[in-house]
Amino acid sequence: MAVNLKAPEILHAVAGVRLGIAEAAIKKPGRKDLVLVEIAPGARVAGVFTRNAFCAAPVLLCRQALSAGTPVRALLINSGNANAATGAGGIEDARASMVAVAVQLALRPEQVLPFSTGVIGARLPVNRMMDAIPKAKADLREDAWLDASRAIMTTDTLPKGATRRVPTSQGDITVTGIAKGVGMICPDMATLLAFIATDAKLSQPAVQAVLHQAVNRSFNCVTVDGDTSTNDSCMLIATGKAGGSEIDEGHADFAAIARGVTEVCRELAQAIVRDGEGATKFITIEVGGAREEAEAKQVAYSIAHSPLVKTAMFASDANWGRIIMAIGKAGVTGLDPSGVSVALGEVRLIESGEPHPSYREEFGTAVVSRPEFSIRVGLGRGSAQSTVWTCDLSYDYVKINAEYRT
Amino acid sequence: MAVNLKAPEILHAVAGVRLGIAEAAIKKPGRKDLVLVEIAPGARVAGVFTRNAFCAAPVLLCRQALSAGTPVRALLINSGNANAATGAGGIEDARASMVAVAVQLALRPEQVLPFSTGVIGARLPVNRMMDAIPKAKADLREDAWLDASRAIMTTDTLPKGATRRVPTSQGDITVTGIAKGVGMICPDMATLLAFIATDAKLSQPAVQAVLHQAVNRSFNCVTVDGDTSTNDSCMLIATGKAGGSEIDEGHADFAAIARGVTEVCRELAQAIVRDGEGATKFITIEVGGAREEAEAKQVAYSIAHSPLVKTAMFASDANWGRIIMAIGKAGVTGLDPSGVSVALGEVRLIESGEPHPSYREEFGTAVVSRPEFSIRVGLGRGSAQSTVWTCDLSYDYVKINAEYRT
Repeated sequence: MAVNLKAPEILHAVAGVRLGIAEAAIKKPGRKDLVLVEIAPGARVAGVFTRNAFCAAPVLLCRQALSAGTPVRALLINSGNANAATGAGGIEDARASMVAVAVQLALRPEQVLPFSTGVIGARLPVNRMMDAIPKAKADLREDAWLDASRAIMTTDTLPKGATRRVPTSQGDITVTGIAKGVGMICPDMATLLAFIATDAKLSQPAVQAVLHQAVNRSFNCVTVDGDTSTNDSCMLIATGKAGGSEIDEGHADFAAIARGVTEVCRELAQAIVRDGEGATKFITIEVGGAREEAEAKQVAYSIAHSPLVKTAMFASDANWGRIIMAIGKAGVTGLDPSGVSVALGEVRLIESGEPHPSYREEFGTAVVSRPEFSIRVGLGRGSAQSTVWTCDLSYDYVKINAEYRT
Repeated sequence: MAVNLKAPEILHAVAGVRLGIAEAAIKKPGRKDLVLVEIAPGARVAGVFTRNAFCAAPVLLCRQALSAGTPVRALLINSGNANAATGAGGIEDARASMVAVAVQLALRPEQVLPFSTGVIGARLPVNRMMDAIPKAKADLREDAWLDASRAIMTTDTLPKGATRRVPTSQGDITVTGIAKGVGMICPDMATLLAFIATDAKLSQPAVQAVLHQAVNRSFNCVTVDGDTSTNDSCMLIATGKAGGSEIDEGHADFAAIARGVTEVCRELAQAIVRDGEGATKFITIEVGGAREEAEAKQVAYSIAHSPLVKTAMFASDANWGRIIMAIGKAGVTGLDPSGVSVALGEVRLIESGEPHPSYREEFGTAVVSRPEFSIRVGLGRGSAQSTVWTCDLSYDYVKINAEYRT
């Protein structure tokens, strides 16, 4: 089902990060659904989280722990249950799991961060998790990224991982990340569940700067259904095991490392859209000629979220009337239709607000029949631009979400 | 398919308004798709229109004519073609149709308002319309509201009309309206295609005030898919044929007439949602405890537009996690989840941000299995409230919109 997406075959180990996987029967038995990540002492960790006001218990605890500044030494990730809208009990459950990991790894509980994804509103099966945590510990190894990428899946049809070697003045560093989706995806200034690690020796401000830059150019540019999850979390771990001098934002290698992390994040973010619930098309929406980047993004999201545009794309119907409808309803103050241009891939469709004389329906149909294409919009009122990646809306999106809890 | 909706059986004639219907083969032959409305001299007319920046040629011409203050004497309405995104040619086409009506009825062209609904981006078949206009004129009669309600349909499965007799100090007045939907429905401070007439003798400011009040409490409270049409138009005609003294906003009868018009508009607006593309459920979303009405509406629309909420409702799945997700992502600054309550119909679900102790899944399922129910949300931060009517998202929404042009 996923559009031009394959399961990762190789994910490089990152020195200083070990992963262990176990079965905790969180939603149903017989599936590896728990990942323990052990982080070597001295690593720098940064995170960004959902802005949904109903954020989940683990998100609250992660925010607390990171703002307290305690060095993070372990992550505990479960799929099958989001531990969201579970109130005080949900906080207790997440804390209990942090304590259990701390006991196993001889850490303090606040050095352990919890992450959950799955059904909202059900309590975590803490007892089964307690039983599984020692098994996950016994499984800890540096080469378990592929297994971990499978264990965090929910409605994903394929695991998602990306990996890079980045040359720096102090030798190659490694960046490896995994992520899961694939519904309730519209990470507004935050992200979904993604874990990226590098052995680069980044300072704490640098690891935060790299993460924000990477997320703004990757996870914050994708949408499946416009719905922002209660559990979005993205973590960047920099173990420093590559050695050399510490890299701050002013360092000559900062840009190369930030680019490497951004590439990994973008590959993961696009993988989530390619595997978006029911997706049959991968669509790049590029909006230019805007007064500000925010304006360009507003128009791009208006197109990306329009159910009429998305169903037309599913049908390989170059129904550009719906595209201009979505541009027009985006709420751009004083937008002049006669300055607007639209292209489907290489085919010019609208110029100065009207159909281009050379446009013919079959040209547009040829483009939107491809599994992967772009919708390019010019607003004709500035030079700012923004790109958003999205997918179509198919029968299977309805099927998956109508049957999710049954 | 439509939810608890029947075709209207009686629509009272309104003295001073005659309607004629004809076949113009606008999208395909063999269907009555053209409505001519003749309005008696002395009538007051007001209109509200889409705020989509890509508004259609007829919308531009209606706005122009109404702002010039020329007394409106006729409306020409076609289904099957929206005359939107047709550029200068579209304006010419609409003007030509205005001239043709003016010639037939011995009016000036600017006394004729054009309205179009249907496919975007195709030119109007003006020649076929020219041929049909004399036939529509020959058909003019006061009792043609039911026929007109059928002729303006596009993907509607049933015609939509509502009618009231309103007692006033000067005797009964009549209010009758027709409307069509049923996709690209999210009339943001405007509306879809709706025509309401009354024989009340309203002053020009009064007819405008009545229309704005009615639309804000009806068409501006419904959504099918969150997509705002390029052609939304709502007209109120007050012929004054009921006689008596002219009614201004200060008049004792103003409130009763405004209420009557509002009731007709609300019935039409709800009919559009009941017949929303693919709808199987009619859902009332009531949000209270907000600081301002706009805040309440923002939350109501966030729920009403969430594809995850809509697909759960389609499946009769009381998946309240998705409802609180939609509340949380609505962008209400400083929203405290612990103040939020949610009920499904009479069933209390969330209190103080957590599941109510008495809540059981089967209670929620029983409510959302009904064809018609309410989602009631308290934000716990004020006393403002807002109500929005919407429908679910089914396989048939995808089917209808994937196959619309084929």
